[in-house]
Amino acid sequence: MSPIETRLAELGLSLPVPVAPVANYVPYRISGTLLVLSGQICIGPDGALAPRHKGKLGGAVSPEDGAEAAKFCAINLLAQARAALGGDLTRLKSCLRLGGFIAATPDFTALPQVMNGASDLMVAAMGDAGRHARTTIGVPVLPLDCAVEVDGLFEIAG
Amino acid sequence: MSPIETRLAELGLSLPVPVAPVANYVPYRISGTLLVLSGQICIGPDGALAPRHKGKLGGAVSPEDGAEAAKFCAINLLAQARAALGGDLTRLKSCLRLGGFIAATPDFTALPQVMNGASDLMVAAMGDAGRHARTTIGVPVLPLDCAVEVDGLFEIAG
Amino acid sequence: MSPIETRLAELGLSLPVPVAPVANYVPYRISGTLLVLSGQICIGPDGALAPRHKGKLGGAVSPEDGAEAAKFCAINLLAQARAALGGDLTRLKSCLRLGGFIAATPDFTALPQVMNGASDLMVAAMGDAGRHARTTIGVPVLPLDCAVEVDGLFEIAG
Repeated sequence: MSPIETRLAELGLSLPVPVAPVANYVPYRISGTLLVLSGQICIGPDGALAPRHKGKLGGAVSPEDGAEAAKFCAINLLAQARAALGGDLTRLKSCLRLGGFIAATPDFTALPQVMNGASDLMVAAMGDAGRHARTTIGVPVLPLDCAVEVDGLFEIAG
Repeated sequence: MSPIETRLAELGLSLPVPVAPVANYVPYRISGTLLVLSGQICIGPDGALAPRHKGKLGGAVSPEDGAEAAKFCAINLLAQARAALGGDLTRLKSCLRLGGFIAATPDFTALPQVMNGASDLMVAAMGDAGRHARTTIGVPVLPLDCAVEVDGLFEIAG
Repeated sequence: MSPIETRLAELGLSLPVPVAPVANYVPYRISGTLLVLSGQICIGPDGALAPRHKGKLGGAVSPEDGAEAAKFCAINLLAQARAALGGDLTRLKSCLRLGGFIAATPDFTALPQVMNGASDLMVAAMGDAGRHARTTIGVPVLPLDCAVEVDGLFEIAG
């Protein structure tokens, strides 16, 4: 088990088997030492999108549920990263960037607090190597009406 | 003619002469083996933005027209890539990532189906090398009121 | 003083001390010759978010104030770049890409004109090296209700 998975296990978390995209795209591409990950939505560890993670911040989704949704997105990014690296997360060197997309009503401005759910998970899992550049924006709607989507750019061992 | 252009021709498609941006930015930048392309809107092969590609998904724009708009964005990305590579698309190695921005009402969740118009075109043109990581989000409005904008990150021969 | 700071000084501008993020993310990450910068909001040189830079284009924020907000974002990107490079902006080689996020009502389509405030500043500061690929989209809401957020990807000396 990699240090990342050990840290997650200490938090009572494990990485799910990632779901394959159902369209003509792939969950990741590698170019040199860059790992480019597709946007991950807030599907839970049980493989389902919980009703509390559907809808909009400022609407039906509470800030706490939004932060949990962001955390699930981050877990899914790590699960995709593990698959991209043939199961070996010790090759994952650092998280360079997360892009956070929060489905929100036009008056909901506490977007960073929601996105912290993803950022906190990444640092909890990767330590300082998980500290990343970040862009967080509100959006009117996301695929499957999910509340949060996060994509990522990572550095991997050459 | 590159294999990409041959495949497009078999589909009855050709790459337009790309339009230059009218502001202080450029359609592409190259860094090492990375080709960074500006967001392309759904201008058609005739150089015009069709009325059916203006407005929002969930509003005046049908899912079918949205998917065609996304396809036009992908064609425009390839046209910009060809210009970036001095006309020689054989230097285009793979599509690493597409970012899909769909102008949508807050209740329109079939965003991936719209974006498939771009992804399908990229795979039709490039084969497996065109299979990319992808992030798709809804947005309230895009430049010129266009329905779809797509940007791209590609790998090129060193 | 680097040429960038000299050019800014000729425009009566200087780079502020960048504000540290208050969450588990960082303003920048470097990977090889890539500098990845977090989204910067339109905090002014006085460290405050002016009321005229809060709200939405198409609503309370005028296009002129929006363009100024975008300019402030670009200045903040350069300030973060300077910090990332240990104070030495001569190591900043080029601006590869800007991502522009404009808080806008669904009927406000003059997004490129607003984003030009950022692009023009980058070219004024960096010359041709500041000419970048760009993606501009509307968003319903941004952190702190700011009108504009811009993120950036730069190339640095190896």
